[in-house]
Amino acid sequence: MSLQSYLQEQRKRVDARLTQLVPPETQIPSAIHRAMRYSLFAGGKRIRPIFCFEAARVIAGELNPALSQDVEAVSCALEMVHTYSLIHDDLPALDNDDFRRGKPTCHKAFGEANAILAGDALLTLPFEVLASLPHTPAEVKAALVAELARAAGTVNGMIAGQVLDLEATNNGATKDSLTPELVEMIHRSKTAALFRASVCMGGIAARANEQQLAALCRFGENAGLAFQIADDILDVESSTEALGKTAGKDATQKKVTYPAVHGMQRSKEIAAGLIATANQAVEPFGDRASRLKELAHFVVARKA
Amino acid sequence: MSLQSYLQEQRKRVDARLTQLVPPETQIPSAIHRAMRYSLFAGGKRIRPIFCFEAARVIAGELNPALSQDVEAVSCALEMVHTYSLIHDDLPALDNDDFRRGKPTCHKAFGEANAILAGDALLTLPFEVLASLPHTPAEVKAALVAELARAAGTVNGMIAGQVLDLEATNNGATKDSLTPELVEMIHRSKTAALFRASVCMGGIAARANEQQLAALCRFGENAGLAFQIADDILDVESSTEALGKTAGKDATQKKVTYPAVHGMQRSKEIAAGLIATANQAVEPFGDRASRLKELAHFVVARKA
Repeated sequence: MSLQSYLQEQRKRVDARLTQLVPPETQIPSAIHRAMRYSLFAGGKRIRPIFCFEAARVIAGELNPALSQDVEAVSCALEMVHTYSLIHDDLPALDNDDFRRGKPTCHKAFGEANAILAGDALLTLPFEVLASLPHTPAEVKAALVAELARAAGTVNGMIAGQVLDLEATNNGATKDSLTPELVEMIHRSKTAALFRASVCMGGIAARANEQQLAALCRFGENAGLAFQIADDILDVESSTEALGKTAGKDATQKKVTYPAVHGMQRSKEIAAGLIATANQAVEPFGDRASRLKELAHFVVARKA
Repeated sequence: MSLQSYLQEQRKRVDARLTQLVPPETQIPSAIHRAMRYSLFAGGKRIRPIFCFEAARVIAGELNPALSQDVEAVSCALEMVHTYSLIHDDLPALDNDDFRRGKPTCHKAFGEANAILAGDALLTLPFEVLASLPHTPAEVKAALVAELARAAGTVNGMIAGQVLDLEATNNGATKDSLTPELVEMIHRSKTAALFRASVCMGGIAARANEQQLAALCRFGENAGLAFQIADDILDVESSTEALGKTAGKDATQKKVTYPAVHGMQRSKEIAAGLIATANQAVEPFGDRASRLKELAHFVVARKA
């Protein structure tokens, strides 16, 4: 199957399951469920769920129906956490973005109060989903919850990344303060942590052993950092139309990015190096990891 | 031991453990950990943790050191979720409160971005705490995570209550729209859900059987609703000084409260009736539940 058909098929699968996992719009209070669904179904690429699913396949081969069902739910939990972070990051007090993927952001469409609460809800529901997986042993459920909470948290997790990013941006990142160490720390926390968790959690759900899990996590960490660098590069090189959000905004807002610190050419080399490291980590899995490696290449080669 | 000494001792215990569970201010990024600690240690009464601990005692008697340690962590997880909800509810886009317990609210002290993220962090960390309990079987950990996520969620949980409350307030609650059913639904979701979870989770952690758990949950649900009604009453009858927040604000903001719907006298009767129902539910536990019943009485009799 071509990568494009594969991605399309996987996205459909994620969308179908997300629809089941999130309460319907008819559930009171309707406003919150509409806001949650609006942002969840605003055209996300489902990158994290796809990596999660593929990581499980690396460990377990073709998944049996029970495992497949649970890994699907795990992958949706990751997409919920990702979506919560976008909703909160877009808020006026944070990045103050009016558009996301070509559509008004959650607070533009539903008001700030509902956006804050919809984000909260998309940070709450995934833990219920993980703790309620029907075919997964309780030890595995607890491990998944801990992994997700750490990735989303304040110690090298998403919230840490967002705080450091805001601080650097508000301090008006200067040539001196913009160090390679700082931008790496921010990107590792802000993006790579959840990316890493996506790959690890696929492995955990599929009962990877310790050695397998270490290999997957190493893959996820490096591919995740490369993904964020690719995002920085796209913000400079792509058009607003292709991105669905204002291109060139990083530079206007003096965001801490790889191109700002390392220049464009060097940033591309770093991303390529990270993908090579990622792919090397999953070499021991042989052919089973070929799709995963293809996905890693895709995240840095994408045009939007 | 007198109730006052007991409460003081329990609060000290919760505070000591919270200090250990939340990353120190020296942990990068410092700003987020300072904001989290500021709100966590702003003089909260630790009511939910105390109910949680006492519910565990009803089931297990004096807790052995291992169980005691884990129940303590569970009770702290509840206080974190409670604190997250206060931080987000106080935000300008929601209730827009400048003071809480006599101190500037989190966004007043640390800015809106940090307050949003500190709230997020206090909704994330508790799930890590629950999933990592060292002495608790994995099935119990998964049950605790599911219970907390549901109580905090959008289906009859805290977020549902907050959304309904905002909608009712923004629609300018009129005599017609302010029905007993609506105010009960809001209070059950906004406050009683987490209160119920506090008592249930103490029971779950102490391995209550199904029947015992049902009794505890019934107690928690009724005591929790009474607690919120008592809060409504205090807002009318108490002073700003005693409350540490602006008294009479519910009426000014046309909040949906029991006194507004039922009048003061009837509200007090309803609260007393709920406490009687709560205490009846734990009657089968005999003397073991006497402190729990004393606590239920305390939450409606308190003056601040």
